[in-house]
Amino acid sequence: MQTKGKLIVISGPSGAGKSTIVFKAIEGRKDMCFSTSVTSRCPRPGEVDGREYFFIDRERFRQMIENDELLEHAEYVGNYYGTPRKFVEDKLADGVSVFLDIEVQGACQVGEKMPEAIKIFVIPPSLEELRRRLVNRGTDSPESIENRLRRAREEYAEADFYDYIVVNDKIEVAAAELQAILTAEQCRYAVRSHWLKEV
Amino acid sequence: MQTKGKLIVISGPSGAGKSTIVFKAIEGRKDMCFSTSVTSRCPRPGEVDGREYFFIDRERFRQMIENDELLEHAEYVGNYYGTPRKFVEDKLADGVSVFLDIEVQGACQVGEKMPEAIKIFVIPPSLEELRRRLVNRGTDSPESIENRLRRAREEYAEADFYDYIVVNDKIEVAAAELQAILTAEQCRYAVRSHWLKEV
Repeated sequence: MQTKGKLIVISGPSGAGKSTIVFKAIEGRKDMCFSTSVTSRCPRPGEVDGREYFFIDRERFRQMIENDELLEHAEYVGNYYGTPRKFVEDKLADGVSVFLDIEVQGACQVGEKMPEAIKIFVIPPSLEELRRRLVNRGTDSPESIENRLRRAREEYAEADFYDYIVVNDKIEVAAAELQAILTAEQCRYAVRSHWLKEV
Repeated sequence: MQTKGKLIVISGPSGAGKSTIVFKAIEGRKDMCFSTSVTSRCPRPGEVDGREYFFIDRERFRQMIENDELLEHAEYVGNYYGTPRKFVEDKLADGVSVFLDIEVQGACQVGEKMPEAIKIFVIPPSLEELRRRLVNRGTDSPESIENRLRRAREEYAEADFYDYIVVNDKIEVAAAELQAILTAEQCRYAVRSHWLKEV
């Protein structure tokens, strides 16, 4: 029997280090992958189309919404972000677990459509530390940084539907916690109850 | 603020290796301990009073029930087993997590009284393997082994209120799964939501 993959939703403020700890946790694993979102925002220096995001224009984005090609979508700091549905559904059917790096609005939509999704909120140790990280990254204007911090505070207030919180102070610790969550979820009664029937 | 310890209920057929994997998982940790049960059964060769169990007679056991000194109690293969309440409550208040190795009836009682308890069912890879382990242990009569296997099948059928299942095929893997469950439970939204308020 092919076990279906799990959908794992990762959210948290920009700069919390979501992608870093996910890539560290899934390194070398063939049973897990990252979903690449589509966005209408411009690539940051160093970002590659199809790696960080599929960069598309707003017109194409609206088309994808109309054609029901997106599992979820949301506007965030003035740009559209969305998750192409087909990629996720194909992977899950193949037994591969899929990580979605999406913001709180989108995560809430996914949680409603797919209640079995595991929802993890990743945060920095403090918003002061987040500000430092965003400044050091050097890709956002001061105004954009203030927008992100304001949005972070709003997200914190809306995050009560997440299953887990990972505090990304040290990357290794945070990645280990993420792996522990994935292992624990594999041990869930509902996932393993067939062991009790084959007797 | 002193965080309260967690109550972790471990059940599973005798011979599944519950104590072994718990001792391996909590080795060297001061924030976790094993609760020692009281029982009316006779010590097996090598068992020490106050280590594996507190061995008491049936009369004293009945007294403890009457005085409400037990968090749970049950009869299992003709003997009484119970969990002294005070030890558990003191440890939890001190921030120490407490493991209870109790059978399904008792676990169900604890789950009703303390719904926040984490309930883990530990099983061998098969009942055939369980039979082999019990035979090799050499402490049970053939009749007692058949009783235990029959009871294991009954427990499997009643185990649907557990949160997790750990399959103890290789001890290292099972102990790592147990540790992952404990780590994941520390990452639960309810446990960490204060991180979202201190901003």
